[in-house]
Amino acid sequence: APALVQPETDVNGMPQFLSKLKFSQDGLVAVIVQHIDTGEVLMQAFADRAALNETLQTRLATFYSRSRKGRWCKGETSGAFIHVHKVFVDCDRDSIIYLSDPIGPSCHTGARTCWFSETSLSVDGVQEAGDHTHHADHAPQTTLLSLEQTIAKRREAMQQPSEGKPSWTARLLGNPELACKKVREEAGELCQTLEKSEGRERAASEMADLLYHAMVLLNLQGVSMEEVLRELRRREGVSGVVEKASRQAKPQ
Amino acid sequence: APALVQPETDVNGMPQFLSKLKFSQDGLVAVIVQHIDTGEVLMQAFADRAALNETLQTRLATFYSRSRKGRWCKGETSGAFIHVHKVFVDCDRDSIIYLSDPIGPSCHTGARTCWFSETSLSVDGVQEAGDHTHHADHAPQTTLLSLEQTIAKRREAMQQPSEGKPSWTARLLGNPELACKKVREEAGELCQTLEKSEGRERAASEMADLLYHAMVLLNLQGVSMEEVLRELRRREGVSGVVEKASRQAKPQ
Ligand SMILES: [Zn+2]
Ligand SMILES: [Zn+2]
Ligand SMILES: [Zn+2]
Ligand SMILES: [Zn+2]
Ligand SMILES: [Zn+2]
Ligand SMILES: [Zn+2]
Ligand SMILES: [Zn+2]
Ligand SMILES: [Zn+2]
Ligand SMILES: [Zn+2]
Repeated sequence: APALVQPETDVNGMPQFLSKLKFSQDGLVAVIVQHIDTGEVLMQAFADRAALNETLQTRLATFYSRSRKGRWCKGETSGAFIHVHKVFVDCDRDSIIYLSDPIGPSCHTGARTCWFSETSLSVDGVQEAGDHTHHADHAPQTTLLSLEQTIAKRREAMQQPSEGKPSWTARLLGNPELACKKVREEAGELCQTLEKSEGRERAASEMADLLYHAMVLLNLQGVSMEEVLRELRRREGVSGVVEKASRQAKPQ
Repeated sequence: APALVQPETDVNGMPQFLSKLKFSQDGLVAVIVQHIDTGEVLMQAFADRAALNETLQTRLATFYSRSRKGRWCKGETSGAFIHVHKVFVDCDRDSIIYLSDPIGPSCHTGARTCWFSETSLSVDGVQEAGDHTHHADHAPQTTLLSLEQTIAKRREAMQQPSEGKPSWTARLLGNPELACKKVREEAGELCQTLEKSEGRERAASEMADLLYHAMVLLNLQGVSMEEVLRELRRREGVSGVVEKASRQAKPQ
């Protein structure tokens, strides 16, 4: 029997939204939970109409368990609720994204996301299980997070006795003055691409330089890109326009 | 009847990988296609063992269609193939991520992702259908892409007769010299957070400032963050270490 459907009155437009969905024979749609700031895919489960209804009303990610045959709210036992900011439907209306920020780990194992598995397989044909030092190696890291992790690994490696010439990242990490000098330099080079009309490719390349060196500076201060992105979202959310908050944040 | 399984010999470790999966009663696992650079969720479908096998061998995203009861390779009719870089399994082994870079639009409608639907529902209770000018408003944009779009909207709005005081972004867009001045200034302020030990929060805030102003500079040159991220990935891929390529890219 389907779970009790709450009265659909709290969220404006919700009944129309739910009636447009194409539920499978067992009354479910797939649900993907995505981190609103980092873009990480945190978990994937299924939802029936009642679970979606509850999510829209409570703003907490709620699902239908096929094995336990019942509705469940992520975090109801662990406290690690997932705050759902927006809900999206795909082109054929059978797959949902909960764009969310999680309170704590999203996986029941305590991992940050459910894709920490050691059985990941590179298309290069190398099975990665066993051949790693970081569990995050197994998570599907997109480019920015992957770069951040590479820098973090260089930092960790500096604790070990070094072999040969240190990497450029290691040199920057070991010499904060050099890192600052490079950030200022790369910012100037990015500006020059505009000032001297050096072209789109050069601009992308200099932005990559700047981003990389700035991320080294962040690592030196123990700041993650997630925190930076959260700050950008906070500004946009508070003011409606990011630039407004940006100006208010300025001391001068 | 299940589709013919290819001999599982081309990709190292593939048989072990496939045998660890927990297929549903109808022999499927959910598959999420995620953009390797931007983190966008591009599409969601299902795969049987044979479809996964084919994906691992061809490196092209392949699925099983529940409605057509057959295997299909995304792009086989449109040419918009999806290149799969890595395959990941979740904690209970019934959900897969194809970390990918797509050749062209991922949705059969020609949209960039399958989540362009106008029936998205904000948890603020506002149904967005009808109340929008940009289709991308309905896509699940994470913070960085959302900021990029905000800047792009300010640029477009400048074509219209303006009402009242221009936004800060509009002022920057209308005054490239000011934008460059700000990028250099914000880079300096980020460096000062380290040099003067101003603390983690200040560092995150100054990085947010720098990122925002640098993205305005990119918009002025028609460069997207996707291009910047692709360049960062190219460097890491080519050299194995991002910093190496970064140094080679320098003229001096
Ligand atoms: Zn929230
Ligand atoms: Zn679908
Ligand atoms: Zn999990
Ligand atoms: Zn591991
Ligand atoms: Zn440079
Ligand atoms: Zn590729
Ligand atoms: Zn699962
Ligand atoms: Zn689609
Ligand atoms: Zn600043």
